[in-house]
Amino acid sequence: MAAPGLGRCMARTGVLPLSQAWGRAPRLPPSPLPAQRRAFSNNKILVELDESAGVATMKFKSPPVNSLSLDFLTEFCISLEKLENDRACRGVILTSAVPKIFSSGLDITEMCGKSTEHYAEFWRAVQEMWLRLYSSNMVTVAAVNGSSPAGGCLIALTCDYRIMAENPKFSIGLNEAQLGIVAPFWFKDTFVNVVGHRVAESSLQLGSLHPAPEAHRIGLVDELVPEEKLKDRATAVMQKWLALPDHARQLTKTMMRKAVLDRLVAHREEDVQNFISFISKESIQKSLRMYMEMLKKKKS
Amino acid sequence: MAAPGLGRCMARTGVLPLSQAWGRAPRLPPSPLPAQRRAFSNNKILVELDESAGVATMKFKSPPVNSLSLDFLTEFCISLEKLENDRACRGVILTSAVPKIFSSGLDITEMCGKSTEHYAEFWRAVQEMWLRLYSSNMVTVAAVNGSSPAGGCLIALTCDYRIMAENPKFSIGLNEAQLGIVAPFWFKDTFVNVVGHRVAESSLQLGSLHPAPEAHRIGLVDELVPEEKLKDRATAVMQKWLALPDHARQLTKTMMRKAVLDRLVAHREEDVQNFISFISKESIQKSLRMYMEMLKKKKS
Amino acid sequence: MAAPGLGRCMARTGVLPLSQAWGRAPRLPPSPLPAQRRAFSNNKILVELDESAGVATMKFKSPPVNSLSLDFLTEFCISLEKLENDRACRGVILTSAVPKIFSSGLDITEMCGKSTEHYAEFWRAVQEMWLRLYSSNMVTVAAVNGSSPAGGCLIALTCDYRIMAENPKFSIGLNEAQLGIVAPFWFKDTFVNVVGHRVAESSLQLGSLHPAPEAHRIGLVDELVPEEKLKDRATAVMQKWLALPDHARQLTKTMMRKAVLDRLVAHREEDVQNFISFISKESIQKSLRMYMEMLKKKKS
Repeated sequence: MAAPGLGRCMARTGVLPLSQAWGRAPRLPPSPLPAQRRAFSNNKILVELDESAGVATMKFKSPPVNSLSLDFLTEFCISLEKLENDRACRGVILTSAVPKIFSSGLDITEMCGKSTEHYAEFWRAVQEMWLRLYSSNMVTVAAVNGSSPAGGCLIALTCDYRIMAENPKFSIGLNEAQLGIVAPFWFKDTFVNVVGHRVAESSLQLGSLHPAPEAHRIGLVDELVPEEKLKDRATAVMQKWLALPDHARQLTKTMMRKAVLDRLVAHREEDVQNFISFISKESIQKSLRMYMEMLKKKKS
Repeated sequence: MAAPGLGRCMARTGVLPLSQAWGRAPRLPPSPLPAQRRAFSNNKILVELDESAGVATMKFKSPPVNSLSLDFLTEFCISLEKLENDRACRGVILTSAVPKIFSSGLDITEMCGKSTEHYAEFWRAVQEMWLRLYSSNMVTVAAVNGSSPAGGCLIALTCDYRIMAENPKFSIGLNEAQLGIVAPFWFKDTFVNVVGHRVAESSLQLGSLHPAPEAHRIGLVDELVPEEKLKDRATAVMQKWLALPDHARQLTKTMMRKAVLDRLVAHREEDVQNFISFISKESIQKSLRMYMEMLKKKKS
Repeated sequence: MAAPGLGRCMARTGVLPLSQAWGRAPRLPPSPLPAQRRAFSNNKILVELDESAGVATMKFKSPPVNSLSLDFLTEFCISLEKLENDRACRGVILTSAVPKIFSSGLDITEMCGKSTEHYAEFWRAVQEMWLRLYSSNMVTVAAVNGSSPAGGCLIALTCDYRIMAENPKFSIGLNEAQLGIVAPFWFKDTFVNVVGHRVAESSLQLGSLHPAPEAHRIGLVDELVPEEKLKDRATAVMQKWLALPDHARQLTKTMMRKAVLDRLVAHREEDVQNFISFISKESIQKSLRMYMEMLKKKKS
């Protein structure tokens, strides 16, 4: 079911791109006018690259809620890899094309009533997404223009910087506990790196979804701006980060994130097995089915 | 001197109860009216269990200052174990029945002029109290209704959530350094998990006792309420935490606390020996005797 | 080029002085009037010891910008060692005698166009300075009375407490990334211990120089005072810290800092080799030369 590209994409895992930073050749200067803008889109993510600025935007367009299905994750990894290898791209802004939602997190239909092989494939794609994004050589800015529970929150946490629309109706958090499931250790490590141990401990135990103002107060997002200014602000922040020489910034990022990245790389297969044995439990399957029923009723 | 129950209680150490979480059978529904309330009290702690709410309260009633003697610690561990094994109990609120004091911390008379064997037995009981409380499957809320130095502060830090009476005359902190002694590494680890490294470093070096408003500002307690509302607020907070499914919450707690728990489990006997050799020094004995003299004079 | 004292000074490395704390004999009481004040000065640092208070001041006087040359670092280590071994000294205040600058950090001329042996000697002196200061038995207070980029910021971070003049024109930060270089891991570890992971990550990647008010807001400095009150405030803070018994405070400090100190001690030679191979790169040499050119032009 995985797109052909994901094989290569996965094969590269463990060799984190940052280790290649030193050998990187100097970038070619951006081409002159007309400003180069390229867009490529598959089904679920629209990617626009502004070559003159060196900045790409990845817009999630998988209605109704940008859930992280296997297809979405596969497309995400392929798109990110393309940008990573594109000398014209130094930074990427992640945002949503769906109103009111950034991403609703992992797609529950991928975790319900499927085969062990499917669970394994799905979980490896989730890991892959995080490994690539957390270790990206590019500057990564999340422009969170809607609610962002669970895996959606993880995507934001995994970026270098988080800007959120200051709408108190939008909330963000790792709310897995509310569904009776447990965030994996690398979700937790990423969260602790951002908000510290005390806040992470109670937020994860309570499965809290923090309204934007609270998310800002606890450091879960770095700043709030009115929704209509979110795009411009993300561009301005990106410019500030790109003013720094790439090599030093990339090496610094590796230094900060290596311990947490290495931990998943070292326990990756174990983590897949844990996920499978957890998700295969009848009690968990049952509560996921009930949750899906509830969502369906809500919809209709 | 230890109550007979403590033997079993200690024998279980190392097998932290959380590892059994998955195997736990579903709880029976609470019985109908009349609301079941059971109380058991030994000498030093009054335990009340509200079965309909699934919440117990442990009230320290060992005047004048709820000091953590061997008897107190033994009773604490036995009471906690009973609740832990009681399916009717999902959360416990820790508070004091003695006005103005939550707990004054370790009982100095247990550390002064006693045998090596006594020091060892006492220190194992301190470790046991912390190991059980920090790894408890239950939701643990500290309702800090008075001052809480040293070991008293540790009890609060070891809970999931801390509410303190907003009386600026009440203070809380790990003030061991003021007495010329050093907080053990697992006091420190617990403290760092709550307030972060910088605050912990200066607070521990200065042996700071933080008045309630300051304790709140640095994150040492999660919220302040007027003393007369403390009990109601603790009950409301407990309700919020108990709204979550137990399993997911318990596993999340284990994930957050395991590293720090494992560190003491791995170095437990070494830590006992360190305590004995430290506390047996004539210089330390002398300063503890002087401190006790001072307390006696204050009292008379 | 190193002063003869540095050999001994370096030979002691790895045996951190704190490990000797327990064996230390009791201090002699301070001598009576006239108050004993001793001063010793070499070229770059003025050291004044107030024996009655037990407090020394180390004043950096190496214009124009107190840059950390090999000579400066050597003198710093020797001065600190003298004070460390002087029973009359229990605390040291670090400040600058040069207006508007605390210290500009590592001297770039030591890293540009020199031999491999020189780079190694220089880098060992930087490590030595940090190892001695971070593990000092004395209370260390930074009175930051001017800007303090890079290595200057490191000196402040390495103290127990940081007070900064509240002048918004003064800034402080680990801005290495701005110059295209990367702060070593032990700069990073020290920084994370003070400001936490999230702030450290973005500040290091951006090479941020934080104006005093912002530095205070993020916890990089502990308090701001008007410049004319900085000296008095540093003395008052020192008094508060010295009110504690030395042994307990020193052991607490070791406990808090040991993990980070041990990491450099274990990888010290590797860290020297990393520095040499990094600094010897033609691209890095080139950007340092350009930076020095820029500074020269500014000056003339």
